[in-house]
Amino acid sequence: MNTLHKLFYPGSILIAGASSKKGSIGYELTATILKYGYKGKLLLVNPSADEILGIKCFKTINEIRAEIDLAIILVPKQFTEETIENCIAKGIKSYILITAGFKETGAQGELVEKRIAAKIKAAGGRMVGPNCMGLINTLDDVKLNATFVAEHPETGKTGFLSQSGALGAAVLNSLRETGIRFAHFISVGNKADISENDVVEYWMNDENIHALTLYLESFSDGRKFLDIVNTKRNRKPVIILKAGKTTEGMRAASSHTGALGSSDRSVNAVIDQFGLIRADNLNDLFNTAKGFEYFPLPAGNRTAVVTNAGGPAILAVDMLGKCGLELAKFSENIKTELKSIVHPEGSINNPVDLLPGGNPESYKKVIELLVKDEGVDNVIAIFVEPVMVKPIAVIEAINSIQSSKPVFPVFMPLPEFRDDYKKRYPAGKPVFWNPEDPSIVIRNMLIYSNRTNEKRLKGNEQVKKIQFTAGDGFLSQRDVIRLAEQYSLPLLNSEILRPHELKNIKTEFPVVLKAAGEGIVHKTELKGVELNIKSQQELLKAAEVMSCNFKEQGIEIEYYIVQPFIKTRFEILLGGFNDPDFGPMVMFGTGGKYVEYYNDVSIRSAMLSDKDVDEMINNTVMGKLLKGVRGEAAADLCGIKTALLSLAQMMLDYKEVSEVDLNPVIITEDNQLFAVDIRIKVK
Amino acid sequence: MNTLHKLFYPGSILIAGASSKKGSIGYELTATILKYGYKGKLLLVNPSADEILGIKCFKTINEIRAEIDLAIILVPKQFTEETIENCIAKGIKSYILITAGFKETGAQGELVEKRIAAKIKAAGGRMVGPNCMGLINTLDDVKLNATFVAEHPETGKTGFLSQSGALGAAVLNSLRETGIRFAHFISVGNKADISENDVVEYWMNDENIHALTLYLESFSDGRKFLDIVNTKRNRKPVIILKAGKTTEGMRAASSHTGALGSSDRSVNAVIDQFGLIRADNLNDLFNTAKGFEYFPLPAGNRTAVVTNAGGPAILAVDMLGKCGLELAKFSENIKTELKSIVHPEGSINNPVDLLPGGNPESYKKVIELLVKDEGVDNVIAIFVEPVMVKPIAVIEAINSIQSSKPVFPVFMPLPEFRDDYKKRYPAGKPVFWNPEDPSIVIRNMLIYSNRTNEKRLKGNEQVKKIQFTAGDGFLSQRDVIRLAEQYSLPLLNSEILRPHELKNIKTEFPVVLKAAGEGIVHKTELKGVELNIKSQQELLKAAEVMSCNFKEQGIEIEYYIVQPFIKTRFEILLGGFNDPDFGPMVMFGTGGKYVEYYNDVSIRSAMLSDKDVDEMINNTVMGKLLKGVRGEAAADLCGIKTALLSLAQMMLDYKEVSEVDLNPVIITEDNQLFAVDIRIKVK
Repeated sequence: MNTLHKLFYPGSILIAGASSKKGSIGYELTATILKYGYKGKLLLVNPSADEILGIKCFKTINEIRAEIDLAIILVPKQFTEETIENCIAKGIKSYILITAGFKETGAQGELVEKRIAAKIKAAGGRMVGPNCMGLINTLDDVKLNATFVAEHPETGKTGFLSQSGALGAAVLNSLRETGIRFAHFISVGNKADISENDVVEYWMNDENIHALTLYLESFSDGRKFLDIVNTKRNRKPVIILKAGKTTEGMRAASSHTGALGSSDRSVNAVIDQFGLIRADNLNDLFNTAKGFEYFPLPAGNRTAVVTNAGGPAILAVDMLGKCGLELAKFSENIKTELKSIVHPEGSINNPVDLLPGGNPESYKKVIELLVKDEGVDNVIAIFVEPVMVKPIAVIEAINSIQSSKPVFPVFMPLPEFRDDYKKRYPAGKPVFWNPEDPSIVIRNMLIYSNRTNEKRLKGNEQVKKIQFTAGDGFLSQRDVIRLAEQYSLPLLNSEILRPHELKNIKTEFPVVLKAAGEGIVHKTELKGVELNIKSQQELLKAAEVMSCNFKEQGIEIEYYIVQPFIKTRFEILLGGFNDPDFGPMVMFGTGGKYVEYYNDVSIRSAMLSDKDVDEMINNTVMGKLLKGVRGEAAADLCGIKTALLSLAQMMLDYKEVSEVDLNPVIITEDNQLFAVDIRIKVK
Repeated sequence: MNTLHKLFYPGSILIAGASSKKGSIGYELTATILKYGYKGKLLLVNPSADEILGIKCFKTINEIRAEIDLAIILVPKQFTEETIENCIAKGIKSYILITAGFKETGAQGELVEKRIAAKIKAAGGRMVGPNCMGLINTLDDVKLNATFVAEHPETGKTGFLSQSGALGAAVLNSLRETGIRFAHFISVGNKADISENDVVEYWMNDENIHALTLYLESFSDGRKFLDIVNTKRNRKPVIILKAGKTTEGMRAASSHTGALGSSDRSVNAVIDQFGLIRADNLNDLFNTAKGFEYFPLPAGNRTAVVTNAGGPAILAVDMLGKCGLELAKFSENIKTELKSIVHPEGSINNPVDLLPGGNPESYKKVIELLVKDEGVDNVIAIFVEPVMVKPIAVIEAINSIQSSKPVFPVFMPLPEFRDDYKKRYPAGKPVFWNPEDPSIVIRNMLIYSNRTNEKRLKGNEQVKKIQFTAGDGFLSQRDVIRLAEQYSLPLLNSEILRPHELKNIKTEFPVVLKAAGEGIVHKTELKGVELNIKSQQELLKAAEVMSCNFKEQGIEIEYYIVQPFIKTRFEILLGGFNDPDFGPMVMFGTGGKYVEYYNDVSIRSAMLSDKDVDEMINNTVMGKLLKGVRGEAAADLCGIKTALLSLAQMMLDYKEVSEVDLNPVIITEDNQLFAVDIRIKVK
């Protein structure tokens, strides 16, 4: 059995640091557990109290005879280590360390935190926290609210993990207003032992959890996270609110690829690639979870809107468009039938407008027709409360509709409705309050249902690795060529010549001449590139001018690169970088010297599937151009895909490569593919 | 006195169609007026009732002797015209026609609507509606809620206009939850007479209104709207929620410019250009209005965040970034002072973290320090309710701070706080409920405070207009040249030659050869362009091949265009189109044959100021490149600005021009500007 099981489903709990002082966390947490009606056995330890809230207190842990599944520790930080040692001695395996003042306060705190975690690990135990705000299991056979927010969470089927205790508290504070329900809540705090990876893996196997919601500020081990969500078994929806976005590029980025990569872009990339869902805010996070809990999965994006009010329907349609969904087109049959229900001054097109007279019967009849239409995948039913129609009867009519297609109700009622509905249907289907909400839910649910398990590239352990001559920094041109050959990267045939060798060159003209050597990275700025050289004589002249220019700037040209001059149709960028969270990543997009400005790139983990490569190309403007627009022929997409896969394989095999730039890769007018310049940085 | 005054401030009201039937609009509206406590005289007309809700009813309008400022009409539509005629006979000048069933139902309804509006106009009166849901004035000396939503709106300083009655109703339904307050609300319905333009102009001169909020689905007369908001006098903030966005290009667009223009893009363009504010949703609309009502204008974008909770502060900082605001950097002095207040395990950097122990005193002290820092323009104060600190004391402390800088409180409390705060401070400053909200408010308030009144281009009535040879459709190449000369558009020097004249051409080589004539619009696709022709012989050969190709497609080349072959550094697009709402518009951006794909354009009304031109250029990637990146020299920005202003002047002078495309305009390596191709379509 997974060691997290006793954490979420403990039969007995010890609270070390329970307190009789109202307002203290040790009191409030104990009171909350009691008030919420925990079904297991609760044991309290406090050296100076006989009883707390009517429960007998033990002075020390040693006094306790009963077996303990879970210890919740909220003693002052100076007593934490000793307390946990006593718990270990007692044989306790699961811990929630609420106490703060560890890693978040600096090096000394981190040291103690690590020591505690190591001791628990050595004893075969697991720990949540420190610096967290506890855990909730709303299910009937547990009923544990081990937090210090004394709200009464309703039972749902969602797991909610929060890296920020305070954000968890804010969500708990709002439960009565937002109607959020969940099965489990866990605040993971400093993640000294148990991280989102452990919880996600556990929830994937807990049948009480249907959808996972995560508030994260950082990934504990992004590579492992990808491994967990990238298995056939782990198929539940994962919705992530990732905070701490930054628009800055990677620190110390020294290539185009590096400048365009940022930690937030990597997060978006892997979320897209692995079929996860990114929420923009708390509202979207929980609305989407509600979608998965209470509504069937949409089969497609064609959406019907039925309303009693024009304005809100228009806002809904605007959001459909923003979310890339389609306004369904109704069949003529359906329209004929709608005509018999809808007021003649209303509308039988999409959105169907029932006018303010729309009543429970007309809503029900119309929606039942719409879900029968083969051209409709989803229905959004909007109801603005008018004077004459009572909302409760309308929601009852809508909720009574039986269909395998989702029907999302949006109500804009007087405030009384919320309480009324909650009282009558405590476990009723959720109602949305903004006409824009369901579109976001539909889009997010479709991301999940379109998710497939693709075959992906993996690092090849057996690859015979090149020993690079350079240490840190950029690889030498010769090493670059060796690596390009190993992975069949389409490097333009280049001759590398010492200055004195130039006069003996045997080549077809026209050619391009480039200066190379240490300190020569951005060749164009230094005027180290001369195009379209048509003869031996021109070549020597160009080299002389170049050498002269460089000397003025105090740079010696070590050697020259001579390449055929080719006719460019497109300039693309292929790149790779090593993300600190998610490891090897690749990039595709518009290339050339203005690449940072065009910013037309798509990023993915190097664990590419064929589908990913197609998506990378499709996601960019360059991809669209390559496919041929305005009657032009398509470029060699197959060659590009192969190059991208090879580059990804290289990134997976050579973990020491931190940045790779193939920019530009020229697509010639006769559809050939040449990387004019490859720059590779290693750690 | 403005004729709208009696509409918003009526001393006496007649309700034609008052009813004693509970649930009918005639009853509910009357009841709402009474319940809200209208301060003026209320007169009811109903042919079959003696009294309604305790008020005596007149059988007919003729019976009434008292003077009537405003008639609210909600009789069935078949009686509407007659009722209004009676009102006109009685001398009533202001009308709200609630009754529906007119223009929105088709041509017959539109006819009646127009007739009614004309009759009222002829009698010197003004009408709101039909098909609207009424009007509210919350001010103490009026207290009129003439709608059928029986909520009790609180008094504020915002004007709220809704084109959708239902959306207005939805907002009114939500008042108790959202805490939205306004001075006036008006539902304009079909806008048969009074449109948003009349109301905006009226509100600009009503000192009770500080900020204007508009929900619009269409602009009644966009040109007039721009004239109204483009005066020095009309300086109040205007916040627009414009629904009915569409991603489709203009219908029947036949040029690049046309394809890139859409009604939604035009709306965004004029909102940006004229310093108005566009809200994305109702929440942003009213949050922004609250900002203007209750907080001082921010002087800049440098924002400090103070919090008792990490997670929500990170979400706030993320949103700051998204909104283009800056996280303020604190001076060392301030940091030293902060150290004496903030818990040592908290943070004295931005965001300042007071930890869950943050109390009223520490919030107040810290914020008072922050607003003193010269590097801070705004403060966002976030408070997640913990067990030990009561939120009401914290909000009192925050609200008591005196500063000319805005301090936006974000509270994430237990639900009790909302009611408690409202009860204690019924007219208190608003509190925001999401950490993301204030950033949007600050951004929007800065849009307003950065607004300047620029000198703008106007149409020149005296311009000597060219008589075009063609009728509908594209102008002939000769007319294009004449127009380009009139406005000094930088058309590349071209020779236009009949096929037989080619052999006599006297020109310097290299040149470009282009096919021209009817049916030849997109020259590249038809292979009607040959570049870099180096001799007379090559020229004739190229013309022969071209002619041959065209004949195969059944097209006769009428004449050839010969232009010098120039070395391209950049290809830009200058364009113009006539927007159905806002009239002449201009466009600047990346040019070339892939212009629709790059979609890198900025759009503005042709009523350009110099500042607008700079912004158009700055808003695009091309603009950044033109300024010189990676050490390159800047292009001739002055020439580009002059060309854009000339094009705008042309659009303003020639109203019959529906689309203009200068694409590409070549910026040469020696910094010259040449429009290679100009296409002009006229209505």
